[in-house]
This record gives sequence, C-alpha cells and structure tokens, in this order.
Amino acid sequence: MSKKICLTGVKPTEMPHLGNYIGAIKPAIEMSNNGEYDGYLFIADYHSLIGVHKGNDLRDYIYEVAAVWLACGLDPEKTTLYKQSDIPEILELNWILNCFSSKGILNRAHAYKAKVADNEEHGRDQDYGINAGLYNYPTLMAADILFIDSDIVPVGEDQIQHIEITRDIANAFNHHYGDILKLPEAKAREGALLPGLDGRKMSKSYHNHIPLFIPEKKLKKMINKITTDSTPPEAPKDPNESLIFDIYKFFATKEEQEALAKRYQEGIGWGHAKLELFDVVNAELAPMRERYDLYMSDKSLIDKILEDGAQKVREKASAKLKTIKQAIGVSN
Amino acid sequence: MSKKICLTGVKPTEMPHLGNYIGAIKPAIEMSNNGEYDGYLFIADYHSLIGVHKGNDLRDYIYEVAAVWLACGLDPEKTTLYKQSDIPEILELNWILNCFSSKGILNRAHAYKAKVADNEEHGRDQDYGINAGLYNYPTLMAADILFIDSDIVPVGEDQIQHIEITRDIANAFNHHYGDILKLPEAKAREGALLPGLDGRKMSKSYHNHIPLFIPEKKLKKMINKITTDSTPPEAPKDPNESLIFDIYKFFATKEEQEALAKRYQEGIGWGHAKLELFDVVNAELAPMRERYDLYMSDKSLIDKILEDGAQKVREKASAKLKTIKQAIGVSN
Repeated sequence: MSKKICLTGVKPTEMPHLGNYIGAIKPAIEMSNNGEYDGYLFIADYHSLIGVHKGNDLRDYIYEVAAVWLACGLDPEKTTLYKQSDIPEILELNWILNCFSSKGILNRAHAYKAKVADNEEHGRDQDYGINAGLYNYPTLMAADILFIDSDIVPVGEDQIQHIEITRDIANAFNHHYGDILKLPEAKAREGALLPGLDGRKMSKSYHNHIPLFIPEKKLKKMINKITTDSTPPEAPKDPNESLIFDIYKFFATKEEQEALAKRYQEGIGWGHAKLELFDVVNAELAPMRERYDLYMSDKSLIDKILEDGAQKVREKASAKLKTIKQAIGVSN
Repeated sequence: MSKKICLTGVKPTEMPHLGNYIGAIKPAIEMSNNGEYDGYLFIADYHSLIGVHKGNDLRDYIYEVAAVWLACGLDPEKTTLYKQSDIPEILELNWILNCFSSKGILNRAHAYKAKVADNEEHGRDQDYGINAGLYNYPTLMAADILFIDSDIVPVGEDQIQHIEITRDIANAFNHHYGDILKLPEAKAREGALLPGLDGRKMSKSYHNHIPLFIPEKKLKKMINKITTDSTPPEAPKDPNESLIFDIYKFFATKEEQEALAKRYQEGIGWGHAKLELFDVVNAELAPMRERYDLYMSDKSLIDKILEDGAQKVREKASAKLKTIKQAIGVSN
C-alpha cells in the first residue's frame, strides 16, 4: 500500500523566528524525514500576494523561506518542495471550486471575520481595505490541498477551520460528480510553544522574538535581553522558575539540562546562565545558519530544487485536473 | 500599425434564439468579418460552471455554442475562436487579480446585487444560494479581458459595468507595478431588438422565443403562433402596425419588404403573411442550420478549431503571464 500524502504549506514572509522553528519547522521536518508519509511542502506565494504588493519583497521572501526549510534539514529527496505559483493547475482548480463554495462559508472564515470586526470597531465599512484575495483564500487553500489528493494536513489550532472548509467544498463537488476529490484530515501540530524574550509566547507582534538566522554576535546580544530578576548571582535559583531555563530546555540534551539545573541550585549569575543558553542555541543554529547563507548566496541551488519539485508535482496535478475537467464537462 | 484587439465572450448555455441571433450573433460576426479588428471570440465555459453542475450538459452547451457561431458565419481564420478552459493562464491571472480587487467592487456588481435583492425580498439570508463563482465572476471576466491586451470589448447595456470593474482592477494592479495591464474600452453593441411571438422583446424568460436551429416544420409552427388580431383577410392592413411585418423586416430585403407592404395594403390574410415571414426566415436560417447540423454530427471539426484557437492564444497568454509573474515577484 502506498504511503499517505501529507501536505504542508508555508507562506513566504519575513524571516521566521526561533518560536516558528521550535513550534512548526523542526517538528514538520522531523515528521517529513521519518518517512511515515509521502511528504509535500509548498511555498504559498500566491497567498502572500494578498498582502505583499512589491515584487522584489515577494521574490526575496520566497527564496528566504525555501532557504530556511532547506537549511533546517528538509530533505528534498524525501519531501517534495515546490512553489504554488509553479503549479497552474492549482489556480484552475481554485476557480472550479469557487463554483462549489457557498458564499456563506467564506463569510465565516476567521481571517475575513477578524478584518470585518476590526473595521466595525473603527466605524468603517465592514469590507474596508479587504481585497478579494483575502476573502477567497479558503477556496485557494482548498485547491492547494485537494489537487494532490492530500490525506493529512498538519495544522495549528487556528487552521482547523481551513480543513473543515476544504472538506465542505470537496463534499459539495463530489455531490455532483461522484467521489473525485479526496477528503483530507487535519492533524494537530505537535510543536511546543517557545517563550519569547519577555516570557510571553514568542511572536513578532509582541516584539519579543529572535529571528532564526542572524549573526552570532547579534544572537548573543538578543539572548542577553531576556528578562531576569535581581536575585544576586550567588543565590540558589529554581530552574523551573527561570525563563532562561525554559528556553534552554528546547535546545539542550537531558545531560546538559541536569548540569545547568545543578549550577542553578549552587547559584549562578544570570549573565552566565545566558551564556550557557547562547551556547546550546548557537550550537543548534550554527550549521543551519551556514547552510542558509550558502543557499542565499547561490540561489540557483534553490531554483533547481523548486523546479524539480514542480516537475514532479505537475505530473500528478495534470492527471488530477484532467479527471476533474472531464467530470465537469469542459473537456472530453 | 497592428489592428486593435476586439474580444467577445459567449457563455455556453441552451440553444440561443432568433433574438440573440439578430441582436448579438449576426452583428458580431459582421464586425469580426469586416477585418477592422483583430478579433477573438471565446466560449466562457468556466463562467457557465457557476450554474451548470452537470458535466454532460456543459459539454453539450459548449459544442452547441461553438457550432452556432461557426454555422452563423464566424470565420475562424479571421476571428480566433477558443475555449476559456483551454487557457490556464486566465485562471492564474484570475487569482492574481483577486489580490487587487477590492471586495467592495464585487459587492456592487449587478448580478450579485440582484441575487441579494431577491433573497431579501424572500426573507432569506442575503447570501442564500450564492456561490463564490457568482460573487467572483467580475474578476474572472477582468482576467478574460486583460490577459490578451484587449482594446475593445463589445457589450450590451447591462455589461458596461464589467468593463468599468475591469478597468478599476487593472488600474489597481498597474498602480503597484507600472503599466502592464492595458485598459480596455467598452463598445456599445449595435444589434437591434427582435420582438418575440407576443410582441414583447424576444426572451427566454417571456417564453416568446424561437430557438435558432430547429427543424423547418417546427419553425413554421412557431411562426404560426405569432399573436394577430381578428381583422378579416381581405381588409387592408398597415404594415407598421403588424408584428409579423416587424419581424419580417429583419430578414427581408428592401424589395421584399416593399412587395409585402403592398400586399398588406391590398389585404392579406395573417396566415399568408406568416407564410411569407417563414419563407424569409427560413431562407436565412436554412444554410446555417445545415452547417450547424454538420458541425454537431462531426464534433471533431469543432475540437480542431478550438485546439487551433487555443494554441494561438496560449502563445500570447503565456508571454503576458510571464511579464505579470515577474512583476509581482513569483518568478525571475
């Protein structure tokens, strides 16, 4: 029996941060490399177009996101990496699915509703500043998922609705034409939440984040910004009450954690603890940062991988779309 | 200087009627054959998908509409005939334009507003029974027009808004990326209004229409249904007050019209007048009906013409989309 297809999409945007790495990138790569699924990862550049209207920015983001995932260990031999805009079949399916998506479904999508709520709060027309891309993106997402017969889509809590919408649309289509579209299943992402520099969840909107690939010196400087209290260096400290230690756990081995816990109990200055944290974080990031810089300095490497991915995916896409177009009656 | 591009779209649907022929098909073909423009005519099958959810129906409609236009004299050597669904670039551009179409524009499109008004009148949710295809079709129409650098789009009164929306979207795109999309101009369609069997405008919704290609016997029968009064046969009649004569004028030469007018003044039975009408209508339709039957009995003729058209158009489409994708940053 062939393996189940597992599909992940990543939106090209500014450099991801350490929280994205721990919560999404690392677990996704571990899963894709363990070989349980037939893995596909796509760069959702046409989703980014909803908000990014500068050509050079979008072009940079696409390379950056590809370089990040490759640098973090995505193996393009095991997981097919491709760019959404290289697969015209997705956009064609997007229109087809439009004709089977009730408008009511789109009205209830979270991203749109949040914008409407914000407009209402500010006394503006409810659709102020909203483009049709934002409104329609659940249908594009359904096309992303359905064109390749995805079985499994790993998602965060906030994305479960997308999979429900995708299933609704697929059901509406299948109702007319038989079981052509495969209903995908959401798989809750297992990644953990990394705290940010101030102890809240690491997030760009809190400005408490550490960008994934920055020079060593800058990384050290940012780690030094972690909020600490004024306990004197020699006082024994509880690792379970320490933000530094909380972050440390994500990067250190069990042995390293025990050793640092011991030093906490003996009394350690926050400066030293931060140095220990920097060491383990940097040890994990350094080889990845090097690979990242390599890809970014020779983008033809990325081009080649994306071209290979697109070629592989387009074979499937074209066969699937052919079936769909025959069913709806636009081709023989 | 190269000729201006003139684009017309026709939606595959049930057999057009005599009113469509006189009001739209005949003048469009005359215009496209006079060589003033570089003419393109496309079968808008993806627009029909909004409402036609039976594969065999849509497939039939596509062949029928192609056969009708070819039978009525469209010369594929002069006017490129193609099927929308054969040009994936249109669907890709559709998504791109989504990201530059304000949702407010779509809210104001006539077809959507009419549905909402109907729902409100019946006390239903305003989006009841509306799919995203219907809501988004102005953007698809903009893609239809813009991908091929159309200069001129012949439209009926009710479609002028589409061209305005298309220009709005093109402007929004060009605002970010420079003058890439050409702003089309609407050209009011010159076709006249043919009255139906009851004297009102011929229309399917009034059930007063004559389908374009029906067997001679049936045509005669339908013409016999034209509403007349009970003036006795021998009484002189005013051709300007006669529905039969009104229709006659669209099919008869000046000489034929004068001759029949004379017979009206001398006194003519309505049955005889209807026979005269049948003769001129049938004289115009018979050779077209024959060609129609020929195309419908060998659909590979249609396939070949559509394939040739698609090939020619895809060359242009692919070059245009390349420019657009480079500008927005999804390709190099």
